[in-house]
Amino acid sequence: MEANTQIIDLQSLASGDILQLKTYHFQGKNGTKKAYIQANLHGAEIVGNAVIYELIEFFSNLNIEQIEGEIILVPMCNPVGANQRNLFFSTGRYSPYDGLNWNRIFWDYIHESPDLDTFVKFNINLSKEEIYHNYLTNIINNFSHKIKEINNSRSLPFSEHLRNVLQSLSLNANYVIDIHSSSVSAIDYIYSFDRRQKSTDYFLLEYAILMNKYDGNAFDEAFLNPWLVLEKKLNHEGRNITFDVEAWTLELGSGMRVKEESVKKGVRGIINYLTYKNILKLELIKPQNKTKFVLKNNLKHYYAPQGGIIRNRLQAGAKIQQGDTLYQLLTFEKKERKPTIIDIQSADQGIIYDVSTNDTVNQGEYILGIFPHV
Amino acid sequence: MEANTQIIDLQSLASGDILQLKTYHFQGKNGTKKAYIQANLHGAEIVGNAVIYELIEFFSNLNIEQIEGEIILVPMCNPVGANQRNLFFSTGRYSPYDGLNWNRIFWDYIHESPDLDTFVKFNINLSKEEIYHNYLTNIINNFSHKIKEINNSRSLPFSEHLRNVLQSLSLNANYVIDIHSSSVSAIDYIYSFDRRQKSTDYFLLEYAILMNKYDGNAFDEAFLNPWLVLEKKLNHEGRNITFDVEAWTLELGSGMRVKEESVKKGVRGIINYLTYKNILKLELIKPQNKTKFVLKNNLKHYYAPQGGIIRNRLQAGAKIQQGDTLYQLLTFEKKERKPTIIDIQSADQGIIYDVSTNDTVNQGEYILGIFPHV
Amino acid sequence: MEANTQIIDLQSLASGDILQLKTYHFQGKNGTKKAYIQANLHGAEIVGNAVIYELIEFFSNLNIEQIEGEIILVPMCNPVGANQRNLFFSTGRYSPYDGLNWNRIFWDYIHESPDLDTFVKFNINLSKEEIYHNYLTNIINNFSHKIKEINNSRSLPFSEHLRNVLQSLSLNANYVIDIHSSSVSAIDYIYSFDRRQKSTDYFLLEYAILMNKYDGNAFDEAFLNPWLVLEKKLNHEGRNITFDVEAWTLELGSGMRVKEESVKKGVRGIINYLTYKNILKLELIKPQNKTKFVLKNNLKHYYAPQGGIIRNRLQAGAKIQQGDTLYQLLTFEKKERKPTIIDIQSADQGIIYDVSTNDTVNQGEYILGIFPHV
Amino acid sequence: MEANTQIIDLQSLASGDILQLKTYHFQGKNGTKKAYIQANLHGAEIVGNAVIYELIEFFSNLNIEQIEGEIILVPMCNPVGANQRNLFFSTGRYSPYDGLNWNRIFWDYIHESPDLDTFVKFNINLSKEEIYHNYLTNIINNFSHKIKEINNSRSLPFSEHLRNVLQSLSLNANYVIDIHSSSVSAIDYIYSFDRRQKSTDYFLLEYAILMNKYDGNAFDEAFLNPWLVLEKKLNHEGRNITFDVEAWTLELGSGMRVKEESVKKGVRGIINYLTYKNILKLELIKPQNKTKFVLKNNLKHYYAPQGGIIRNRLQAGAKIQQGDTLYQLLTFEKKERKPTIIDIQSADQGIIYDVSTNDTVNQGEYILGIFPHV
Repeated sequence: MEANTQIIDLQSLASGDILQLKTYHFQGKNGTKKAYIQANLHGAEIVGNAVIYELIEFFSNLNIEQIEGEIILVPMCNPVGANQRNLFFSTGRYSPYDGLNWNRIFWDYIHESPDLDTFVKFNINLSKEEIYHNYLTNIINNFSHKIKEINNSRSLPFSEHLRNVLQSLSLNANYVIDIHSSSVSAIDYIYSFDRRQKSTDYFLLEYAILMNKYDGNAFDEAFLNPWLVLEKKLNHEGRNITFDVEAWTLELGSGMRVKEESVKKGVRGIINYLTYKNILKLELIKPQNKTKFVLKNNLKHYYAPQGGIIRNRLQAGAKIQQGDTLYQLLTFEKKERKPTIIDIQSADQGIIYDVSTNDTVNQGEYILGIFPHV
Repeated sequence: MEANTQIIDLQSLASGDILQLKTYHFQGKNGTKKAYIQANLHGAEIVGNAVIYELIEFFSNLNIEQIEGEIILVPMCNPVGANQRNLFFSTGRYSPYDGLNWNRIFWDYIHESPDLDTFVKFNINLSKEEIYHNYLTNIINNFSHKIKEINNSRSLPFSEHLRNVLQSLSLNANYVIDIHSSSVSAIDYIYSFDRRQKSTDYFLLEYAILMNKYDGNAFDEAFLNPWLVLEKKLNHEGRNITFDVEAWTLELGSGMRVKEESVKKGVRGIINYLTYKNILKLELIKPQNKTKFVLKNNLKHYYAPQGGIIRNRLQAGAKIQQGDTLYQLLTFEKKERKPTIIDIQSADQGIIYDVSTNDTVNQGEYILGIFPHV
Repeated sequence: MEANTQIIDLQSLASGDILQLKTYHFQGKNGTKKAYIQANLHGAEIVGNAVIYELIEFFSNLNIEQIEGEIILVPMCNPVGANQRNLFFSTGRYSPYDGLNWNRIFWDYIHESPDLDTFVKFNINLSKEEIYHNYLTNIINNFSHKIKEINNSRSLPFSEHLRNVLQSLSLNANYVIDIHSSSVSAIDYIYSFDRRQKSTDYFLLEYAILMNKYDGNAFDEAFLNPWLVLEKKLNHEGRNITFDVEAWTLELGSGMRVKEESVKKGVRGIINYLTYKNILKLELIKPQNKTKFVLKNNLKHYYAPQGGIIRNRLQAGAKIQQGDTLYQLLTFEKKERKPTIIDIQSADQGIIYDVSTNDTVNQGEYILGIFPHV
Repeated sequence: MEANTQIIDLQSLASGDILQLKTYHFQGKNGTKKAYIQANLHGAEIVGNAVIYELIEFFSNLNIEQIEGEIILVPMCNPVGANQRNLFFSTGRYSPYDGLNWNRIFWDYIHESPDLDTFVKFNINLSKEEIYHNYLTNIINNFSHKIKEINNSRSLPFSEHLRNVLQSLSLNANYVIDIHSSSVSAIDYIYSFDRRQKSTDYFLLEYAILMNKYDGNAFDEAFLNPWLVLEKKLNHEGRNITFDVEAWTLELGSGMRVKEESVKKGVRGIINYLTYKNILKLELIKPQNKTKFVLKNNLKHYYAPQGGIIRNRLQAGAKIQQGDTLYQLLTFEKKERKPTIIDIQSADQGIIYDVSTNDTVNQGEYILGIFPHV
């Protein structure tokens, strides 16, 4: 079957040119569920575009009965970030205009302070499907209202406009998948949420970070948080419901590089997950191993204790014990008689999951991250 | 009298050079109050350095009886921001390392979730001075503990280190003044807080923005918020106390420019405020006019509805009625037969308080801000 | 009469969007001369776009008899430069890819080492028109050949591609006008070439810089230099010919700002120049005053002798005597007891023609420029 | 033996901090020859700092008889470049102030248009040593004169100041070695000059690029060119002299990374070269293989024919035949029905010597370089 495509004007530039989004829609014959997949929200994180290319190829070879519901794919979902350069570096992690992290711009219904108590009171005895429908209607109406009230003269910041476009496409989805890469150099992993752990295994990745601490305004969190909050409230009132909505951020490989192995893992994981969710009618791969979870607030980050040049740093994926030398720092402090090498030992036991791109550091620059105790 | 000075190593660079802070301390013969004044937290906002220069000159000509307590001045409080360039532009508004707004990095005791109920229970019947002392001790201890627990191997991000250094100097002050400028082009104004409005007039500025909505982690807010929260709690328990702590952000003039009139206004206002607070034993200027307050959440911001070139924009300070043409947008959209001029009308009545630096805009870039109804 | 327009695909971006040029052609009923006018080659220098807008409006109101020959206008001639931002600053003076100054990328026929001795030998006795035609043919053929030999696999750097597109439009023109602004803040002036001084007056500007020293690869120079070299060779052989080709760079106002007075001066000057050259059949304004010439290699540039904050700087247009205080430098050097103000005196007598945008400087940053002895 | 060190104030910053150079001098007991070695002129090219660290360690363990003459080492020779960041990228390839390539800022005596004909006339019959001495005196005097005539008020651009400092240290050396890395990702190689090929082998590297085409103002070229020009003139007058001056640029590994193998190759090569030149009294390694030379103007560069994502690119060091697929370009052009993969075939036979850092490209960005026919 063939994708329907849609072109959306996204940003009119000073030069009079227009940056656009192109979306690819695969609509199955039956089914009402919707999966939404985007890539390259941060400028350097390009692997997901190749994953989406492979998915479009793959879906194009399916017949219309093999898809139930709708799959929307948006590669290059942030052209401003993707096209931005400083020298040959992809520096589009933050909006050049307001410094906002492109993945902290999203709208979370909960921030509108909706009266959930009243909602729960009126919906507590309805079916799961009815509650889903009523709540989704509230979210969509509230969001639409915000967009309608944009004043033509005042207009709005680009980061808010981008958010509006991407969330208009995805707020009513059941499953959203946002494909990132480490901005630096990393192993492949996935971000997962509380009450959604069990689906994680079907992505067939070794590691997951569990978002156990609210961070705010990321694409996945802004989508799922309103549902998690409602579930909690309902639970508190004695209704234990898990709605059929899930959000995922895949972290595939490293910034500015397309590692084909990461592409393959991403494609395999997404197809298997959509099969598990019955959007694809294909043979499910039963996970052999359970994904290992690391709590978000347990991650250990290392920063340069002083400026210098990093040598002999351990690589992403390395298992380390407390006291192991993680890297050497060659420093050129003027007061020292000679350049000096300092050994930096690990304060943690675990696995190095990412390491920085640049072996030169000023004091306080990021060096590496550790998944402890896995 | 002469200032005592202190030099603090702030950041060791890759090259082995070290960026330092230099602090200037004027210690009066008597008195225990402390005022802390810093400038140039954002790279382009340089006017405050000239203000501090003039204050140092002024204080140096006072005798030791004319100062009661201590005044600490920190010009160039963020050398990373001040020295940063892209071409000849001062682009140091956000940390180059993590994209953080340099004025959203600060530590707020409330974020540590202290048990204020217990604190209030044990302190409710003490004197204002005792409560102040006990609470300040808690804040300082908590902050010191965070600094002590920094792991040598993990170290910490530079933005956190800068925060630690600046807050170590200021957390125990009574009055903190953070001198900013508009990063773009603006009139002079001041940020004020709830329950502290009455001191505002003594800065002798025409306009103030009232921080009626918690924003978070700015220098002034991180300093004052713990006290505001405590005052509220005490009030709730029947004790109506206003502690002798205040925080101010001055916005003097425009980015990258030292307008001498803004320097004069800043110097005059700060000296008068410190006189009002009895740190300086000088003649007080009684404000002729009350400062006009605008609520933070009432500010109106205008963004480019499409890309193009701005022409005939009204300037900062202009009074406008609804429907007035604020600016013209000359656009070069390729689908139009010819370049086109669009008139943008104001949706608001009030005063333009800032306008952007750059007359070229991509869609969604900032154009100007309005104080409505003043 | 109405412009014919042409759209040219210029750069395909990572996101799949395409930056385009739009050119506006006014073709008179008679005449064969051609004028080419472009604007905004450097990102911050936007005034010329407004000039071209006004020219398009103006030419659209002429009838076809009032134009003899062809006028081509290219606003936003470098969309990469115009759209580029760091924060809200237009930093597009150098290519982000290779650091090249966007106005030093152009192709100069002379750099191909053509055998001009042989050309002169064979053409020395032909008419001016025949020599013009033969030489232009050589230039165009050589340029076309370079473009044809571009290898599809190797392709070419974007700066070279942009050059090819802009010079394809302009190499066979008689008059090229490249509208710049000062990247900093400046008075209005024009760049003129040897053997072309007399036309300068018709632009009705007070000052001109005479390009008496070959700099290389700027748009105006790359266009005119081959003709200047040929004229010299012919002159040496006894033929004193001035070909009907001229090149001009207008410097209108300041970077990132559209000063309407500069727009008016630009429009007036270009219309008058084209009238003088008989491309427009309008009434010529006879210049009341001769344009004052400054030799390029006589310009005096001032740079910061140390880091600090500039105060009380004289503005562009100020007349100065040797010894006048040009600006004060407020420095914060750590070894000094207090911040210090240094007065910087002029080593020159003349007129300040530009001053930098930023009042903060690291050592060696640009401060201002002087036209000496005018 | 121990190094003498010297600290040179290089740049006073806006903040009042000062960037400094630290130079390390090893002075042998005897000998008059001088070798000068610097590293990290371009911000991302850090490997040379590690090489210099290892050399300092190595020389420190020699005794004073093992060095004849003087060796000067300058790690971190451009702190502005080394410390500069955009996000975590080392973007210091061009001066942030004037866009100049940090390795095109140097002073070449020949550009002063010295009267070499007269020099040759008066020196033609002197000994090689006398001519060397007289010419060097001219160079040094001319350079000193330029520095002396710097006007205090006008001061000078930072790039010129950096040049003055580095060339003051090196102009009277016999051998200068400038340690670079590829700014992208590359094999190790060396730049060599005409009439100096035979020394190249002693660096023990597989490949050299021969600077057969004058490029201008690079550190190595600015040092050596005056001598090459003089040698040519003398040769023309019948004296065939090769002065004992040589200049080298080592390209070790990739930008932002310290590959320890490249460090080892650099250290080994420099020690062996200095041994060959009798500055070190150590055992010489006779090169087993001759270094393969590629002419500078034969290098083949590949640029992106359109925007997109690079996949399956061949790596630096790969041998390729004409027609081999170098890389795939995944493009997202909006007019195409689906994202498309284009295979890019090599137009050349040879070895890939460098590949770009970033797998996302806008049209015209650099992809890779080929040494043809080696």
